[in-house]
Amino acid sequence: MRASELFFPTLREVPAEAELPSHRLLLRGGFIRKLAAGIYSYLPLGWRVLRKVEAIVREEMDAAGAQELLLPALHPQELWMQSGRAAKYGADLLRLTDRGERDFILGATHEEVITEVVRQEVGSYRDLPVVLYQIQTKFRDEPRPRAGLIRAREFIMKDAYSFDRDHAGMDLVYDRMEKAYERVFDRCGLEVVKVEAEAAAMGGTEAKEFMMLSEGGEDLVFICPSCGYAASGDMADYAPPEEAAVPAAGLRSVEKVATPGMKTVEEVTRFLGVDAARLIKTLIYRADGKPVAVLVRGDRELNEGKLVRALDTTNIEMADAGLVQEVTRAAVGFAGPVGLSAPIIADFELQTGADYVTGANEDDAHLMNVNVGRDFQVAQWAGLRRVVRGDACPHCATGLDEHRAIELGHIFKLGTFYSDALDAHYRDEDGGQCPIIMGCYGIGVSRIVAAAVEQWHDNNGTMWPLGIAPYHCAVIIVNTKEQAQRDLGEEVYRRLDEAGVEVLLDDREQSPGVKFKDMDLVGIPLQVVVGKRAGEGLAEARRRGQKGADYLNAEQVVAWVTEQLRAAGLEK
Amino acid sequence: MRASELFFPTLREVPAEAELPSHRLLLRGGFIRKLAAGIYSYLPLGWRVLRKVEAIVREEMDAAGAQELLLPALHPQELWMQSGRAAKYGADLLRLTDRGERDFILGATHEEVITEVVRQEVGSYRDLPVVLYQIQTKFRDEPRPRAGLIRAREFIMKDAYSFDRDHAGMDLVYDRMEKAYERVFDRCGLEVVKVEAEAAAMGGTEAKEFMMLSEGGEDLVFICPSCGYAASGDMADYAPPEEAAVPAAGLRSVEKVATPGMKTVEEVTRFLGVDAARLIKTLIYRADGKPVAVLVRGDRELNEGKLVRALDTTNIEMADAGLVQEVTRAAVGFAGPVGLSAPIIADFELQTGADYVTGANEDDAHLMNVNVGRDFQVAQWAGLRRVVRGDACPHCATGLDEHRAIELGHIFKLGTFYSDALDAHYRDEDGGQCPIIMGCYGIGVSRIVAAAVEQWHDNNGTMWPLGIAPYHCAVIIVNTKEQAQRDLGEEVYRRLDEAGVEVLLDDREQSPGVKFKDMDLVGIPLQVVVGKRAGEGLAEARRRGQKGADYLNAEQVVAWVTEQLRAAGLEK
Repeated sequence: MRASELFFPTLREVPAEAELPSHRLLLRGGFIRKLAAGIYSYLPLGWRVLRKVEAIVREEMDAAGAQELLLPALHPQELWMQSGRAAKYGADLLRLTDRGERDFILGATHEEVITEVVRQEVGSYRDLPVVLYQIQTKFRDEPRPRAGLIRAREFIMKDAYSFDRDHAGMDLVYDRMEKAYERVFDRCGLEVVKVEAEAAAMGGTEAKEFMMLSEGGEDLVFICPSCGYAASGDMADYAPPEEAAVPAAGLRSVEKVATPGMKTVEEVTRFLGVDAARLIKTLIYRADGKPVAVLVRGDRELNEGKLVRALDTTNIEMADAGLVQEVTRAAVGFAGPVGLSAPIIADFELQTGADYVTGANEDDAHLMNVNVGRDFQVAQWAGLRRVVRGDACPHCATGLDEHRAIELGHIFKLGTFYSDALDAHYRDEDGGQCPIIMGCYGIGVSRIVAAAVEQWHDNNGTMWPLGIAPYHCAVIIVNTKEQAQRDLGEEVYRRLDEAGVEVLLDDREQSPGVKFKDMDLVGIPLQVVVGKRAGEGLAEARRRGQKGADYLNAEQVVAWVTEQLRAAGLEK
Repeated sequence: MRASELFFPTLREVPAEAELPSHRLLLRGGFIRKLAAGIYSYLPLGWRVLRKVEAIVREEMDAAGAQELLLPALHPQELWMQSGRAAKYGADLLRLTDRGERDFILGATHEEVITEVVRQEVGSYRDLPVVLYQIQTKFRDEPRPRAGLIRAREFIMKDAYSFDRDHAGMDLVYDRMEKAYERVFDRCGLEVVKVEAEAAAMGGTEAKEFMMLSEGGEDLVFICPSCGYAASGDMADYAPPEEAAVPAAGLRSVEKVATPGMKTVEEVTRFLGVDAARLIKTLIYRADGKPVAVLVRGDRELNEGKLVRALDTTNIEMADAGLVQEVTRAAVGFAGPVGLSAPIIADFELQTGADYVTGANEDDAHLMNVNVGRDFQVAQWAGLRRVVRGDACPHCATGLDEHRAIELGHIFKLGTFYSDALDAHYRDEDGGQCPIIMGCYGIGVSRIVAAAVEQWHDNNGTMWPLGIAPYHCAVIIVNTKEQAQRDLGEEVYRRLDEAGVEVLLDDREQSPGVKFKDMDLVGIPLQVVVGKRAGEGLAEARRRGQKGADYLNAEQVVAWVTEQLRAAGLEK
């Protein structure tokens, strides 16, 4: 391709709206353009990168035995009602009504639709297993689209779904997908961390996320520097206290204090002049229809996924004001464990510490000096709160590190959540009807494009890994007015092209500075500069971002480039 | 690929809803499945065919110098307001509102968006020309989705757009696209007819459609069997009468008759007992703000595109009842040319015939024996009506044939319609602002899949052209219980695969009848049957649909298959 013909409008100035390097550089390099909030056009260079990521994903999916198809973007809303996700996703879904007043949802993901397709076609156990995938545009009405392709409202995903007779079959596919994902990220030149992820909230049994550590990420992951344990912020566990440490003696007596209108942890602690760690938060939930009181320390955040796992049900919801009143005989903000009839589940951190402040189950009142065991009984201890930096690793008790990260992939043992909801059954050998065991496996294809820039860039622009670079090599004619430079540039271009190298010839009538800046900005990994020594048949060859260069003749340039490609596993 | 693992749920029974062969056979062969009216999933086999069509289109677009990108499906409604197409498309557009109450349209086509993108990036004449294309899902809320992939609500198109300094530049791209399209259809194995198409309604200067003649089509094309003139039903012209043939003498006198409540051609002709060909329809339009009366014979249908071209304006609309009353001093249904002050444009067919019936410009009255020239004057003669079978070819006066057809492609010299509406300008050498000259070029990618089946099928199923077949070759093991058959089948499969042939091994434990029927139904072009003579190392090789077969050994099978591919231009 000739740069003089390529549509890649580069920008010198930094777009004001863009904070993250990937957002800035993808805009500046002419890879993408914004049409509306969270909605981007992929210009030719960006689309080339995206198609390379797609091709890698496709090859690895095919190699893993998955079959490609394409499902519609328009989903009848009924399907999402059946799964319950129409409500769960709420305003995150883009909805529309057709001319016949039928309601549709724009596909945010495709579990319902693929389950519906497979349900209709799979009769017996002989039709299983089957693994299907697609690479497709998804739509989510993100409340805060941000960071360009990192969190867009219209984006491209690979989503795969597996259908098996039993959990053992699903486990096999899951393992195969995990390995395929590792190869995908490796071929894309990305370093990722595999972390344990939340599965129980959707009735699943196991899930992993593929995370790229990055300051610009909006997810948190916790990693044990000692044993390597790694988990998402939603999932990360912490070790229980080594032993219960409530002092047996020296405890003060319970004392009721007036806390008029003080409902939040902040209000109560400020009013009483105590630290939030001295407070017990009492949260009333309805689990499987019955009230339950959930206790965590005042400075902690309940993790609902952990509550779901501890209670072994996906059917939980926070109590409304009416139920709180009924259970505690007080307004919201004054619940406490003392004298409560509902069963109590408590974070095991509360096995330590003493003389806590709690609500008094009475309007405008709290209790001081409340102690577990003495003043109330706990029906179940569990890890219920979100982990924080420094918490003890659940495996080796080392303090956990906290990192920001970008989620790039996700594998998930779904089990029967969707097959139950949508009646996707198969007949086993005995003629019995069994729910199909499902897994789902996603990769953020367009997000990888941005993530690659987050991981690979410098002050001058993007630095694409060879495997997904828009072109492998840029041949820059420094001065197009010089016949010798033009001739050598064209010759090198032709030879590289004939050798199967993806090469961009910068033949533009621009100043050398503009051309060097542009080629650095668009981040072509291999650069061949045809300048002053063109008369001797020599050009400078270097990798993007490297200082210094070797003078090579045309033949040597081709040998050097093909060697670089070979070393990167891109045989030419 | 092994058929035992492939997800291709074939159907024995003919789906009740499907009338056209392509619709029936794509469902029966497990290529597609319906999710909702006009909304289909592409199952693995259908998706393979579609991806092959995509690949052909992509190669030919790249070769024609177009650059691929991807534009969003979600379009801010403002853009469609600016072009006026939000109203023009009306209920055919799927619309939605995001959580911030902003209105979006799901892309039915992308002229507005691409013009917006290019407008922002193109500054000077140096940035032109540029030709951009995408292959993408489009959305149209068709009132009557039908025939499976022929007219769907969610479908895949290739749309290309060219941006040039001048008409000469656009003409070059247009010609290049025309040739690229011919290669695309040729490589897809489809015979198409190029026809002149309507361009003026969108302010364009020239357009062609690529039509596949087919009983199942919903478009009409008219072709001259003598000189080859071919045009779409909207565009087709007819020769004017050789000479004006209104008799100079013997005409009867005008006579007013009461026609109480008789407003339609049908009512008037029945009431007066005359043929519709004896009536003149007088239609009042507003063109560029001024009223004009348009005359066509009572049995003819006005073609608004022709009126647009004749009046040389895109700004026409049919008069409402108020304007009709104002111009004719009568209610709708009684307009006539006699005594009318508005200028009259008449179809030149009315240069022949005499003693016509017309409205009287008076409620409940018509005139008999009205004659052109004697009773009213025509300001402009033109071809204004839709052509009908047998009309005289505009080039050679031979009677035109009428065919039903499916539109597969469209090339269109748009001119400045969108660049004017969206302010897409460039600076010329002198610093002056000029509108960019645009062209657009569409191919119905998913429609090609259906069209190929319409053109290539028999009673047993699809008969894919080699260039777009889901697999080139099927190897059918007749009896998988026979070791010799299994061994030879596997060997042939392996050898073909190693030779780069796309091969499907039917290794299913099914009866031979089921396997033969399925492989015919899915229409794999080359069939290798491994049966009774497997012990001798021989298999039968034949093309799908051909009677008889040759017995070949494994090596000969590979030679035969590769020779077939080579003959079809698919080098392996």
